[in-house]
Amino acid sequence: MTFDRLWSDLAPVGRDASTGGYRRFAWSRADAELREWFAGQALARGLDLVTDRAGNQWAWWGDPDAHGPGVVIGSHLDSVPDGGAFDGPLGVVSALLALDALRASGTRPARPVAVVNFGDEEGARFGVACAGSRLLTGALPPDRALGLRDGDGTSMAEAMAAGGFDCTRAGRDDETLGRIACFVELHVEQGRGLAGLGRPVAVGTGIWPHGRWRMEFAGEANHAGTTRLADRRDPMLGYAAAVLRARELAGKHGILATCGKVAVEPNGVNAIPSRVRGWLDARGADAGAVRALVAELSDGCEITEESWTPATSFDTGLSGRCAAVLGGAPRLASGAGHDAGVLAQAGIATAMLFVRNPTGVSHSPAEHADRDDCLRGVDALTAVVTDLAGGRPG
Amino acid sequence: MTFDRLWSDLAPVGRDASTGGYRRFAWSRADAELREWFAGQALARGLDLVTDRAGNQWAWWGDPDAHGPGVVIGSHLDSVPDGGAFDGPLGVVSALLALDALRASGTRPARPVAVVNFGDEEGARFGVACAGSRLLTGALPPDRALGLRDGDGTSMAEAMAAGGFDCTRAGRDDETLGRIACFVELHVEQGRGLAGLGRPVAVGTGIWPHGRWRMEFAGEANHAGTTRLADRRDPMLGYAAAVLRARELAGKHGILATCGKVAVEPNGVNAIPSRVRGWLDARGADAGAVRALVAELSDGCEITEESWTPATSFDTGLSGRCAAVLGGAPRLASGAGHDAGVLAQAGIATAMLFVRNPTGVSHSPAEHADRDDCLRGVDALTAVVTDLAGGRPG
Repeated sequence: MTFDRLWSDLAPVGRDASTGGYRRFAWSRADAELREWFAGQALARGLDLVTDRAGNQWAWWGDPDAHGPGVVIGSHLDSVPDGGAFDGPLGVVSALLALDALRASGTRPARPVAVVNFGDEEGARFGVACAGSRLLTGALPPDRALGLRDGDGTSMAEAMAAGGFDCTRAGRDDETLGRIACFVELHVEQGRGLAGLGRPVAVGTGIWPHGRWRMEFAGEANHAGTTRLADRRDPMLGYAAAVLRARELAGKHGILATCGKVAVEPNGVNAIPSRVRGWLDARGADAGAVRALVAELSDGCEITEESWTPATSFDTGLSGRCAAVLGGAPRLASGAGHDAGVLAQAGIATAMLFVRNPTGVSHSPAEHADRDDCLRGVDALTAVVTDLAGGRPG
Repeated sequence: MTFDRLWSDLAPVGRDASTGGYRRFAWSRADAELREWFAGQALARGLDLVTDRAGNQWAWWGDPDAHGPGVVIGSHLDSVPDGGAFDGPLGVVSALLALDALRASGTRPARPVAVVNFGDEEGARFGVACAGSRLLTGALPPDRALGLRDGDGTSMAEAMAAGGFDCTRAGRDDETLGRIACFVELHVEQGRGLAGLGRPVAVGTGIWPHGRWRMEFAGEANHAGTTRLADRRDPMLGYAAAVLRARELAGKHGILATCGKVAVEPNGVNAIPSRVRGWLDARGADAGAVRALVAELSDGCEITEESWTPATSFDTGLSGRCAAVLGGAPRLASGAGHDAGVLAQAGIATAMLFVRNPTGVSHSPAEHADRDDCLRGVDALTAVVTDLAGGRPG
C-alpha cells in the first residue's frame, strides 16, 4: 500500500461536489463507508479489528490482552461541514503506513501496536467535539451523549443504531483503556507555525486552554426610519465595538480571539434590534491572558462563560522521546482540541506529531499539506512507533 | 361611540399574551376579525361598505358615484410582529370618530366622506410594505403580489382565498381611485419630533427618500483556535467597522442609518467566518446626504442597492389647508413609508396628520400615545374633514 493509493481511496468519500469540501458526519452514510474502509484495511493486513463501547475502531497487531498494553497510533476520519481532506485522515493513513513500514523492516516489537480510528472527533453532527474519545474515557456520560440530537432531531442513539452499532453498552470502556500503553496522534497542523519555521514535522507540547463566552447586548426595538440617532438604544453598535475590541485585546495579550457567531433579534433591515447576542472564542498559551481579555471585554457588555477547558500537557517523557527520535524536531502547542488531549486528561501517556500546513488553512476545502511533507510525517511516525514498540531487529 | 369604547374593542385582537405585542398579519385570523369589526362599524353607522379589488375596505357616507369624488380618511389595522396598538388603528379609530363628530354637528357636507381600512400596510407576512395601496394604484403588479409567499410557503393568493377574498380580479382599481377627491391619513408619530416641540398634532410634509443596501464582506474560513491573527481574513471585523462607520456618517450627514440585519457563514463559535452579509437602511430629508453616506461607506466593502424610494411630497395645497384649519400646526416629515405616500405617488391629493408619541418608540409593544393627545388628534381630524367636505351647517 502506498500513500497515494490510500489517499485516493478516501478522496471521494463524503465529498460535496459543489464546494469540494467533506461532509463526513458521525454515523452518517459517509461515516459508515469510512468505517468499512478502515475495517478493510485491517483485514488486508491481518490485524484484529475491535470496536469499543464508544464506537471507536482499533486494529491490533499483536494481542494486548496476552502481551500487555500496546502502542497506539491513529486519529479520526470524520470532518466538519465542508472540511478539508487532511484533518483526521492524514493521521489514520500515516498510522497504517507506519505500521506497514514497521512490519516490513522485520522488527519484532516488544509490544503490540494498534491503529485507531476515533469516531465523531469534530462533533459536527451532535455538537460535542471528541465524542468518541470522551465516551471512551467517561468524560462524556453515555446518557448525555445518546440523547444529543442533530439538526434533524435524530438522537445519537438512533444514529448509532442506524449505523449498525449497538449502543446499549455505550460508556467508559476500561477494557479498551487498559490496552493502551501510550498514544501518538499525527495530525496536519492547523496554523502556520511549521511554515514559519521551515520544518515539516513538529512534536506537540500540549493544547492551549480555551473557552467560549456569550456576550449579551440589550437594546430597544424601534423603527429604523423614524428614531433619531440620539434616541436610539442600538445593540448592534455595542456588538460591533466588542468585535473590534476583542481583536485589539487579542493582539495586546498575544492570544487568539474570534467572534464567529452572532444572533440578532428581530434581524430585520428596517428594525433597530432589541437584542444582539455574540459569541467569543478565546484561547492562548497563557490562561491568565485569556482571562484578562475576557475581563477587559466585560467592561462593555454582559459576558457569560459557556465553556472553559484548562491547558492540556502531553506526556513530557513520551514527547521528549519522540523529539529525540526525530533528531530535535521543533515543539508546537495546539490551539485546537484533539482526541490526544482527551486521552491525556484521562491519564494516558500521549503525544502528538504535527505535519506542516503551508497556508495554515483548516476546516475548509482549501486545507492542504504537501505530499512530500505527508511522506516525511509517515517517516517520523514510523521512527517513533518503532522506538516505542521496542524489540529487536528480526 | 367613544374613543375608549372603540379602543377597548380592538385591544385584545391579535395580541400575543407573552410579549403584549400585536401580530395582526395580512389575511390571518386576526386580520379577518379586524375586517369584521370594521364592517360592523360601517353597518352600525349605516355606511356603505365596499371592498376594492385590492382587498381594502371603504365605508362611505354619501355616494361618490352619484355625487362625485369624496374626502377619504383612515389608515390600516394590521401590524408588524409584536407591534404596538397605535400604528395604524389610531388612524382608523380617529377617522370613525371624526365622521361621527361631523355627522353629530348637523353639517350637511358638499362631498361624500369615507373611512378606509387599507390592507397589509406593514408587509409583515409577505414582505412588501403597503401591499394593499400598491395593488390599488398598480404600483405592485397583481401577478407579483399574488405569488408572494409567507414564511410557511403560503402564497398571498392562497391567504386571500382563505380569508374569503376573491382575488381573481386583483389589481389596479380605477373605479375606486376615481372616488377619491383627497386622502388624509392620521398616524401616531414614530419618532420624538412632536415630543421635542411640545405639541400634540403635526401636519406631514412628505416622506423621506430611503433605501436598503446589502454590504458584502468576504473572508477566508479558518479555525478560530489555530489561525494566527496575522494570517486571518476575518470578515466580521469589516462588518463591525462598517456598523460603527455608518453610525458616524449618519451623524455627520444629519440622516439616519441602521444596520439591523446580518447573515454570517458558517456562523460557528469556533470558525472564522467565510462571509458576512450586512444590510444598511438609510434615509433622511436630503437624498444627496443619503447617497453620500453610501458612497463613503463603500470604501470599505462591496455595497449593492436593493431598493431606493425617492422623496414623496404630500399635496402642498391640501397640507397647507390642514395646517391653516389647525391654527398653524407644526410641519413634520416622516421617515417611514405610509399608504398616504403610495397614493401621493399615484397623483392623488394626500396629506397626513401625526399624533405625538412621547417616547418615540414604534414597532414595539411599548409604542404609546397619551389618551389626551389621541383625543386632540380626533378633534384635529374632525376639523380637517369638516373643512374639506365643505357644505353648510344643517
